[in-house]
Amino acid sequence: MSSSRKVIELFYDVVSPYSWLAFEVLCRYRNVWNIELKFHPAFLGGVMQGSGNRPPAMVPNKGEYLVKDLTRLASYMNVPLCQPSNTFEVMFEKGSLAAMRFITAVVENAKDGDRLVENVSREVWKRIWSTDQDICEPSSLSEAGLKAGLSSSEVEELIRQAKSQPVKDKLKQTTQEALDYKAFGFPLIICHVDGKPEVFFGSDRFELMAYCIGEKWLGPQPDKLTSYL
Amino acid sequence: MSSSRKVIELFYDVVSPYSWLAFEVLCRYRNVWNIELKFHPAFLGGVMQGSGNRPPAMVPNKGEYLVKDLTRLASYMNVPLCQPSNTFEVMFEKGSLAAMRFITAVVENAKDGDRLVENVSREVWKRIWSTDQDICEPSSLSEAGLKAGLSSSEVEELIRQAKSQPVKDKLKQTTQEALDYKAFGFPLIICHVDGKPEVFFGSDRFELMAYCIGEKWLGPQPDKLTSYL
Repeated sequence: MSSSRKVIELFYDVVSPYSWLAFEVLCRYRNVWNIELKFHPAFLGGVMQGSGNRPPAMVPNKGEYLVKDLTRLASYMNVPLCQPSNTFEVMFEKGSLAAMRFITAVVENAKDGDRLVENVSREVWKRIWSTDQDICEPSSLSEAGLKAGLSSSEVEELIRQAKSQPVKDKLKQTTQEALDYKAFGFPLIICHVDGKPEVFFGSDRFELMAYCIGEKWLGPQPDKLTSYL
Repeated sequence: MSSSRKVIELFYDVVSPYSWLAFEVLCRYRNVWNIELKFHPAFLGGVMQGSGNRPPAMVPNKGEYLVKDLTRLASYMNVPLCQPSNTFEVMFEKGSLAAMRFITAVVENAKDGDRLVENVSREVWKRIWSTDQDICEPSSLSEAGLKAGLSSSEVEELIRQAKSQPVKDKLKQTTQEALDYKAFGFPLIICHVDGKPEVFFGSDRFELMAYCIGEKWLGPQPDKLTSYL
């Protein structure tokens, strides 16, 4: 059975709210579609720099639209997303480097596969994109780790490892892998179909993705099906 | 009955392939959702300049992705879209000003409502985004007009009017209306819900749009329903 499962890879950064939407939808579909979902925490700043892209909100009309779009999508997708009180500071001044190194350390230590990576990522996302809390300080990442089910000593060890060269290098490597898939932003989703990678950008291509991988799209809340009844 | 119909407005430019996808899907939904669809041909160049946006393909990775994305979407949406042989020249050197003035003249003269605007827009789109034909020369626009069901004398008159100040001013005015809705690109879709405009950008928000206007999304080919059976 397991060899017939389609592999879907998600490259993401917790600084990206659209990545959170994609993450939650793909997690919900893990058991609806016959897929193996692989998480690749990476650094969006590196992708923007490497691709020569610039943040969409640098165009004021686009910035205004994105706030509205995210609010509507989060409601429709049932993800508890709220704008931070100072989005610019949170996204561009404070950034996500420490957080993504922490999550990368989780990946490097994961014993029970991706479940812990999923839980820690979600807890960090909730801080930055739901409850307007810091994700830069070790104490912040520690809180997220504890909520995700890690022990105090595990969290301490991960925070230590997050500053190590191997973890820094691993995050750079994952970011480079996204650039090798021609990333220009996140989320970047790779569906492996008949041995060929199909690349999707954004959290608005699930219906198309379903068509490409031969599965059915049942809306962002497949357990509810409200849209299609 | 007609007063209860929801109004959906589409701002578009034939130079934009995503606008074509949105246009065809909305035309298909005209009788599926209880909507009045209003066409607003406008000038994308003016929106890009007015909003300070730049063409997405200026980021090379994004440019490569868009080609792939359009091909996949066109197949899924069943729109016969093909890249022109020299996309850069067609989009940025030749452009769509003459074509959009011609379509604006059709709007100004339309006797049978929007049907003629729809047909002429589609014929011009087919030239630039399907059969790799010119849309700048009067003879090209004439051909599109004839295919759309206009007579030779009507086409001749429209081509004359397309160069007139009132038509130029009307196109500027429509473009400004899009900017007033904070456009930063096309397609721009305005759904009037309970007297309030809900603004959507792109051809990938139909499912969300359905949710916002209280209708059902049945995929891009609502007469087929292949995705949801």
